[in-house]
Amino acid sequence: MDGNGTNRLSAYRHKLVIAYDGSAYGGWQIQPNSRTVQGELESVFRTLTNVEVKVHGSGRTDQGVHALGQVAHCDLPTAWTGDRLLNALNASLPRDIRILKATRAAETFHARRSAVRKEYRYCIWNAPVLLPHLRQYRAHIREPLNLGAMCAAAACLAGVHDFAAFTANPNREVDSTTRNLMKLTVTQKGHDWVIAAMSEGFLYKMVRSLAGFLIRVGSGAVPPQEAARILQSKERTARVPTAPPEGLFLWRVWY
Amino acid sequence: MDGNGTNRLSAYRHKLVIAYDGSAYGGWQIQPNSRTVQGELESVFRTLTNVEVKVHGSGRTDQGVHALGQVAHCDLPTAWTGDRLLNALNASLPRDIRILKATRAAETFHARRSAVRKEYRYCIWNAPVLLPHLRQYRAHIREPLNLGAMCAAAACLAGVHDFAAFTANPNREVDSTTRNLMKLTVTQKGHDWVIAAMSEGFLYKMVRSLAGFLIRVGSGAVPPQEAARILQSKERTARVPTAPPEGLFLWRVWY
Repeated sequence: MDGNGTNRLSAYRHKLVIAYDGSAYGGWQIQPNSRTVQGELESVFRTLTNVEVKVHGSGRTDQGVHALGQVAHCDLPTAWTGDRLLNALNASLPRDIRILKATRAAETFHARRSAVRKEYRYCIWNAPVLLPHLRQYRAHIREPLNLGAMCAAAACLAGVHDFAAFTANPNREVDSTTRNLMKLTVTQKGHDWVIAAMSEGFLYKMVRSLAGFLIRVGSGAVPPQEAARILQSKERTARVPTAPPEGLFLWRVWY
Repeated sequence: MDGNGTNRLSAYRHKLVIAYDGSAYGGWQIQPNSRTVQGELESVFRTLTNVEVKVHGSGRTDQGVHALGQVAHCDLPTAWTGDRLLNALNASLPRDIRILKATRAAETFHARRSAVRKEYRYCIWNAPVLLPHLRQYRAHIREPLNLGAMCAAAACLAGVHDFAAFTANPNREVDSTTRNLMKLTVTQKGHDWVIAAMSEGFLYKMVRSLAGFLIRVGSGAVPPQEAARILQSKERTARVPTAPPEGLFLWRVWY
């Protein structure tokens, strides 16, 4: 705490649900030489409250990845009603970041540590030509995908497994690369395909690795039975490419 | 015709179906000091064919207006198969302009003069907060809209009428401001509202004027019965605002 009362610990914890178009950002987390979603939020809070406010997200999203239900918490020097906070933030934030909901939260609420489950959705446009309005929100796969093969592979991958073969950097995980993938489904509606993945916790680039593998299965490059073999190998190889970021949405976080 | 054979009249007419995100363009039609969709197409044709190719659209779209089914024709010095032309154009065009279909066409086919019917859709997001991914593709209306009132007003406006009160510049029309509005409907699915308008021909900014008026009716500013009175007045007033361009899509052209 300094003499001006700035930077003091504040007692008023707030919870935010945030949507963003990740196209123009270097990701969620503040980093040098790059616009980030967290950076934009903290900069708006600085103007709004005259103190430094740290915004804690439920987790990072990578460069170019989107969110429809990112959750964050922050401590503010005064208590705000949800609507007033939502309107004040949205009035100052760029239009590609929107606060969908703002509420007071218990002091014990922590956006990352209190999260019990997350859902990501990976969105694919499967047709020869990608519609211009979707170009930043879909992975574009030209060759026809096989839904049955993708569903079979997804069923193999769902459940509790060591996903070392499906993370970009297994050494980054300090304790274990075993995760409970509670749901992994592939659905199709016209040219729109969605891979939905739900877990208590994901490894680094795990969803894009699962999507990259399922797309290879769908295009016939790899048989669905390979899923079990790759899981068992616990080794990341070229058979599991990382699908591009523009298809990925952090969909929802449960508490 | 010059000695190199450039600028000669070519015998091979082609038809294009084009989708574009109008956000970054000054509209369809070529104009000085502004990127235009027609300009981008003609520039790609110049590289592709080594001659000046004029691209004739079914009609202009204004700055910021989108298309999912704009149609154009052009005469090329050689005959192209549809797929080859589509792939060559899409390989060189910016990603916010896409050729959806390319075919050979009869010499008598004219994108504007042969059109018998057009459909525009005006898309609205009706909720307090506009999702970031839709910010360039929806008009954002915060206050709740009344579907019944909008449908009643739309039913009044459909049919053959003098639409002088629903065009930005009635003097621009040389012959008549009477048009056959074959369809004008309002539909809703969650926060997404769509006004669909079909006619053999539209006046200047007619769809955005109809949308602007219907939104005023939906928000309760004007009773639906005003539609008949405004039609009869044949005078454009502040009761008919022009809705913003980002909600408007040229949806389809019939031949």
